[in-house]
Amino acid sequence: MRDDTPFAGTAVKSRAERRREDTRRRLMLATYTMIALRGADNLVIQDITEAADVGYGSFYNHFSTKDAIVDAVIDAARERSLSIYHAASAGFENRVEAFALELRMCLQQCLEDKTWAWYLVRTFKPGGGCRIGLFERLQRSIAAGTADGSFVCHDVEMTQAAIGGLLLIAALSMASSPMPEDYPERVAAEVLRQLHVPAQEIERVLNIPLPNTPIPPFLAHAA
Amino acid sequence: MRDDTPFAGTAVKSRAERRREDTRRRLMLATYTMIALRGADNLVIQDITEAADVGYGSFYNHFSTKDAIVDAVIDAARERSLSIYHAASAGFENRVEAFALELRMCLQQCLEDKTWAWYLVRTFKPGGGCRIGLFERLQRSIAAGTADGSFVCHDVEMTQAAIGGLLLIAALSMASSPMPEDYPERVAAEVLRQLHVPAQEIERVLNIPLPNTPIPPFLAHAA
Repeated sequence: MRDDTPFAGTAVKSRAERRREDTRRRLMLATYTMIALRGADNLVIQDITEAADVGYGSFYNHFSTKDAIVDAVIDAARERSLSIYHAASAGFENRVEAFALELRMCLQQCLEDKTWAWYLVRTFKPGGGCRIGLFERLQRSIAAGTADGSFVCHDVEMTQAAIGGLLLIAALSMASSPMPEDYPERVAAEVLRQLHVPAQEIERVLNIPLPNTPIPPFLAHAA
Repeated sequence: MRDDTPFAGTAVKSRAERRREDTRRRLMLATYTMIALRGADNLVIQDITEAADVGYGSFYNHFSTKDAIVDAVIDAARERSLSIYHAASAGFENRVEAFALELRMCLQQCLEDKTWAWYLVRTFKPGGGCRIGLFERLQRSIAAGTADGSFVCHDVEMTQAAIGGLLLIAALSMASSPMPEDYPERVAAEVLRQLHVPAQEIERVLNIPLPNTPIPPFLAHAA
């Protein structure tokens, strides 16, 4: 086994380690795609290993159960989204600007990546909200923005449900049919109107350019 | 075979006919319950006949395929809902009153019948809307009410999506956890606020009593 480490202190991985990570990534990518296609409920380990082109027994070198790989995929998706959106909106002190930016990025990503849109739809859970954590983040932002006067809600819980429902339907629409380019912006405008953001302010925040670094597909590269 | 017909012109059914209808009803009831439990996609005919306590071969005396029984259940559910809501709201000339009454009845029914709530959630389809036809009826009412000035929408399509999404989340919530008694009325109030119905008018229409004839469970009796 070759030692690739060129410099002291850097953590360059051995070939065996990289192969191991690639197998793990392929298993997770197959699981993610299957969740997007048909939900997390009826997964079969053999289907996952076949789609990942990995021997059945290898599965257990990485995950002890089916639930363990589903949890790993959901955690990775949650961390990925939150870090992308948080990094993009961190520079904005104005709550409406930061909220609108995250919302537009999330919608734009659904328009560009149908698998991601399906994944969000399939992992949306009643009651507990979307397991990915995006729905909880949305709910917290709405509550905090209402508390500090950035947003106006008559009944916060109902407004959260209406906005969550609108985003679910928007993700479903983008997942299942080709939607026009301006669709994400129309959805974002509707969300802001529901929060009683003034029309002029809506127009202003929707004109803030989105970061133009493309978001790579989920699990496209080894972690 | 006994002839039960006591009066000329009435269509009292023969015993064989009643048994046949009862078998058909039990097959449809089992299918309805399975759709509510896990959706219409992965149904197996043998599971349906076992749940209905009907011989496997009998299935084909009533339905030629699995899709045929699913369609029959969906059609029966659509007709049932539309006739109940239409009968209840037919006496109201005021559009806001009629709309609010149908909405409240639909929500109340979800609160009281979890299987029905799950059924509505599972048959909700992206794009085409809910296969049961309720979503289309909702969309038409919103569009017509906006056209005649009963409702105010900035972007009709987005308002339809937001209200549809809110009702989907409300049905999910009522299907999956026990919700307080005032939940349907809070949801209805939010829907009317989204349509910019004035607060005083919302209060007034929510105080119109619902019809107090209980709605029997779907397919409880032979058709």
